[in-house]
Amino acid sequence: MRLRIGLAQLNAHVGNLNANLEKAKKALDLAEKEKADILVFPELFLTGYPPEDLVLKTGFLNDSRITLNEYIEYSEGKDTISVMGNLDFEVDAYNTAYIVYNGKEEAKYHKIYLPNYSVFDEKRYFSPGNSPLLLEMKNGLKIGITVCEDIWVPNGPAVDLAEMGAHVIINISASPYTKGKPKDRLEMLKTRASELSTWLVYVNHVGGQDEIVFDGGSVVINPFGEVVHSLPLFEEKIDFIDIDPISSTRANLREGKRRHLIYDTHNVEIQKIDKTIEKKGNILKGNKKILLLNKYEEIYKALKLGLKDYIHKNGFSKVVLGLSGGMDSAFVAALAADTFGSENVLGILMPSQYSSKGSIEDSLLLAKNLGMKTETIPIRRTFESLLKELNVAFKDLPMNVAEENIQARIRGTIVMAFSNKFGYIALATGNKSEVATGYATLYGDMAGGLSPIKDVYKTEVYKLAEYFNKIKGGWVIPENIFTKAPSAELRPDQTDQDKLPPYEILDAILERYIEYEMSIDEIVEDGYDKETVKYVIKLVDLNEYKRRQGAPGIKVTQRAFGKDRRMPITNGYKIWR
Amino acid sequence: MRLRIGLAQLNAHVGNLNANLEKAKKALDLAEKEKADILVFPELFLTGYPPEDLVLKTGFLNDSRITLNEYIEYSEGKDTISVMGNLDFEVDAYNTAYIVYNGKEEAKYHKIYLPNYSVFDEKRYFSPGNSPLLLEMKNGLKIGITVCEDIWVPNGPAVDLAEMGAHVIINISASPYTKGKPKDRLEMLKTRASELSTWLVYVNHVGGQDEIVFDGGSVVINPFGEVVHSLPLFEEKIDFIDIDPISSTRANLREGKRRHLIYDTHNVEIQKIDKTIEKKGNILKGNKKILLLNKYEEIYKALKLGLKDYIHKNGFSKVVLGLSGGMDSAFVAALAADTFGSENVLGILMPSQYSSKGSIEDSLLLAKNLGMKTETIPIRRTFESLLKELNVAFKDLPMNVAEENIQARIRGTIVMAFSNKFGYIALATGNKSEVATGYATLYGDMAGGLSPIKDVYKTEVYKLAEYFNKIKGGWVIPENIFTKAPSAELRPDQTDQDKLPPYEILDAILERYIEYEMSIDEIVEDGYDKETVKYVIKLVDLNEYKRRQGAPGIKVTQRAFGKDRRMPITNGYKIWR
Repeated sequence: MRLRIGLAQLNAHVGNLNANLEKAKKALDLAEKEKADILVFPELFLTGYPPEDLVLKTGFLNDSRITLNEYIEYSEGKDTISVMGNLDFEVDAYNTAYIVYNGKEEAKYHKIYLPNYSVFDEKRYFSPGNSPLLLEMKNGLKIGITVCEDIWVPNGPAVDLAEMGAHVIINISASPYTKGKPKDRLEMLKTRASELSTWLVYVNHVGGQDEIVFDGGSVVINPFGEVVHSLPLFEEKIDFIDIDPISSTRANLREGKRRHLIYDTHNVEIQKIDKTIEKKGNILKGNKKILLLNKYEEIYKALKLGLKDYIHKNGFSKVVLGLSGGMDSAFVAALAADTFGSENVLGILMPSQYSSKGSIEDSLLLAKNLGMKTETIPIRRTFESLLKELNVAFKDLPMNVAEENIQARIRGTIVMAFSNKFGYIALATGNKSEVATGYATLYGDMAGGLSPIKDVYKTEVYKLAEYFNKIKGGWVIPENIFTKAPSAELRPDQTDQDKLPPYEILDAILERYIEYEMSIDEIVEDGYDKETVKYVIKLVDLNEYKRRQGAPGIKVTQRAFGKDRRMPITNGYKIWR
Repeated sequence: MRLRIGLAQLNAHVGNLNANLEKAKKALDLAEKEKADILVFPELFLTGYPPEDLVLKTGFLNDSRITLNEYIEYSEGKDTISVMGNLDFEVDAYNTAYIVYNGKEEAKYHKIYLPNYSVFDEKRYFSPGNSPLLLEMKNGLKIGITVCEDIWVPNGPAVDLAEMGAHVIINISASPYTKGKPKDRLEMLKTRASELSTWLVYVNHVGGQDEIVFDGGSVVINPFGEVVHSLPLFEEKIDFIDIDPISSTRANLREGKRRHLIYDTHNVEIQKIDKTIEKKGNILKGNKKILLLNKYEEIYKALKLGLKDYIHKNGFSKVVLGLSGGMDSAFVAALAADTFGSENVLGILMPSQYSSKGSIEDSLLLAKNLGMKTETIPIRRTFESLLKELNVAFKDLPMNVAEENIQARIRGTIVMAFSNKFGYIALATGNKSEVATGYATLYGDMAGGLSPIKDVYKTEVYKLAEYFNKIKGGWVIPENIFTKAPSAELRPDQTDQDKLPPYEILDAILERYIEYEMSIDEIVEDGYDKETVKYVIKLVDLNEYKRRQGAPGIKVTQRAFGKDRRMPITNGYKIWR
């Protein structure tokens, strides 16, 4: 017996039910053409993930059901079973996998394990299911259905399904990207398949949604924990693969190999489906190559997909950003040009009396190398005009952060003026090291619709810029931008290191504090100076108010500012004192 | 037998463990002096509520325990039992009520019902408890312990406690304010006491924490559902009251009166406490007056407390805001002057070529009436300077929102310059009608550390201003500000109604869409024009990106923008099309 599986690693648009339905229909057409037995979509595919408070709208719940009904109708007369992610609702709402076949909703499965940590709020929206679903085909093939978190839990419903004789376990997911997660996730899936001794078909969402990027990387794994087919990361793809799930060795394998698992028995619901699995025709061979990426290629592609989807899904096609001559704006410009084409990226140079000649030259060279347009709008006169108006009120008080921020805010105003005038989305160019320490001006360089490198540490921005130049085959981002000392150029001879420790040290401390929630003592034990650690933590804590008003960024670390790290602004817990 | 209860309706500072501990100790001293048998604190009093992701820090968990230990030590030799809210943690963390008596932790109760809707994320942080706690005094008095949500649930642990013979049920809360909630909450508590036929002692937190205000309003209710003592709204207060919980009528009462309740039986834990309840001395009479407020007084006090605590708990004492001559900035200035004293409020007038003479005069009169200082910083020259710089790039394109926003952003820059130069927190003055429809400039008039009336509809701002003038006994907010047509004055002869429906209609539609999640058809059924409804909903949906970067506001409605309404920015669900 041969089972032909279609993996629909598609990019849904949150809330855009019709667009998602159309994609689903096309995938089903293709599956029919390829004579697939089963076609698997990502979690909540018809609504997009995460739909957030749309789930609290009765109208949205109803419309999502209408959309599903249209899909069901469309499946009539077709011989492919669909596993479709959508909402279900009675008194409560459920994150649901629907089994659709030949014009009928054959069964549905309510996700049992609802993640409610990190960026996830599923317990805000959904009630958990309470019984695993096992499908049984006419000729005995058994397929278990799970949704995302269900498969991460070691003793979750997959265990019940395996116990009940599942040959294949399907998992539909919307699993967000973080650095290194594709590899970790794959290891988890391999472990799960081998400990359960079942085939595992894992289909993940791909695409960007506000702060989150879903990286795809769908796979089929055999009961030995070996990858037999792997889909690319960060790309939409529909692939088909034939597996032979009822092998003569499998039952023996399960007896001999599987670990002893302790679990609460769920009440497995068995749904018999009137479909025979026995395919003839071409055998589609799997691609056993595991499609993982190198570290910076992986992050780069995540940023690119997140940026692209944020701009396009919001109905825009062009972006504008300030070019300071520094690495952050240079890299964001390069990323944007690579994502949208350089004709869709406008860079604004906004020199002041404190701007170095190098900054202007470097920006112009960068723009030339990228082939993007620039405008130069000097801020000196406007800055002086504003200072003059403020002169009486500010009396003889010394220049301080007020005057520095005025410059940054005039620049923010100019970038936003281009955004408003031409309908481009403004990109903020702050990196995570800056956003963490508040080394950025609210409403100034923090202004913009999206902050693409908000979750990338400064030291990593350099690495990504190196990667960019490598793929482009030369110094597209000019060498001088790599070698000069980072500076905000808001007063004479300023450098970032006037106020911050060297970035290698800063980033190491930030990572330990933010991502690993290490204490001062634990960070000091890792070899960092105590006063420096306390100073950095103080900066992070005191600048929560700025981050609360910052543009959304693209999450690439395991703890991003935004939905992922929810600290109070008003916070008397001051461990640095 | 007479039980003397202390209700410590106190204002905790999130994260400031020592400050909260000091308040708790002082309350215990007072309770000892008053010979109270039991002293009840609000939910999570030692940490403050909500501690958000501080709960994910091991150091914070440890420090909260150390703080509790100090309180326990302090209780040694004292004859008052404390019911203290704090964190507990083993593998998981728990929202816990600790029973502390004479230097010992006698018992602890883990909150069973964890709210995870609206502004609440308790399932992100806590595991639920699984057994109600009943305290039994040496001479038979039984007291049940519950935490906040536990008492809102009709068939929650209070039912088990009553079944087990509780004479008194204590509930420690951190229940956020919304319009009309003090009355609704009181009705719920009266219902609960009478259906359980037990005494109910309810102690709520009071104070502001970022977006949330806790309104206090602690009460003691007898088994007939009658309020026997009531604490004020929006004020810190420690009160003592004597009750006689083992009345001869109570048992009969329970038999005769209580409703039939269906519930899952929890496993009630009974903790015997070696304390005799039998007080002599003065009988403290309860205040049977229920301390509710009129509608606008209630909202006004909520805003005042939220504003005060945000500024003070963040270590500031002065505020600055732009005065446009319109009602929003006038009311915020009045509120701030009333909250901090007019000497701590600075108003900035920033006239342009489009500002009416009336706007300037009205602002100056307002400031004079309030006794606050102003500065006048014209923006015309700076605006013209910037336009000149942009002239070439903007070519002959017609003036549009770009030029309007430039003015608003120059003003934002000026207000922030005063904030940075003098260490004042800037207040944004946008109301909910504006924030909802995007009728405000991001980084312009939306700039500020706090947006006090962000959750107050425009029509309500007028009502609050009337209330303000009433309590001040005259036209402190000048009559002209009430009578002129609202305008942003960003182009000649502009009024808000050029782009928005009349505020009475706008606010009615907004309330139905945002707070009640009504559909287009349902709103139209209420008597509103369909095209207008669709237009308003479109504005709300399309401006999510602005709100995401807006300053936090003070929640007063049942659905505030911010933590309470979590909509995706990227959202293809467009019901207005």
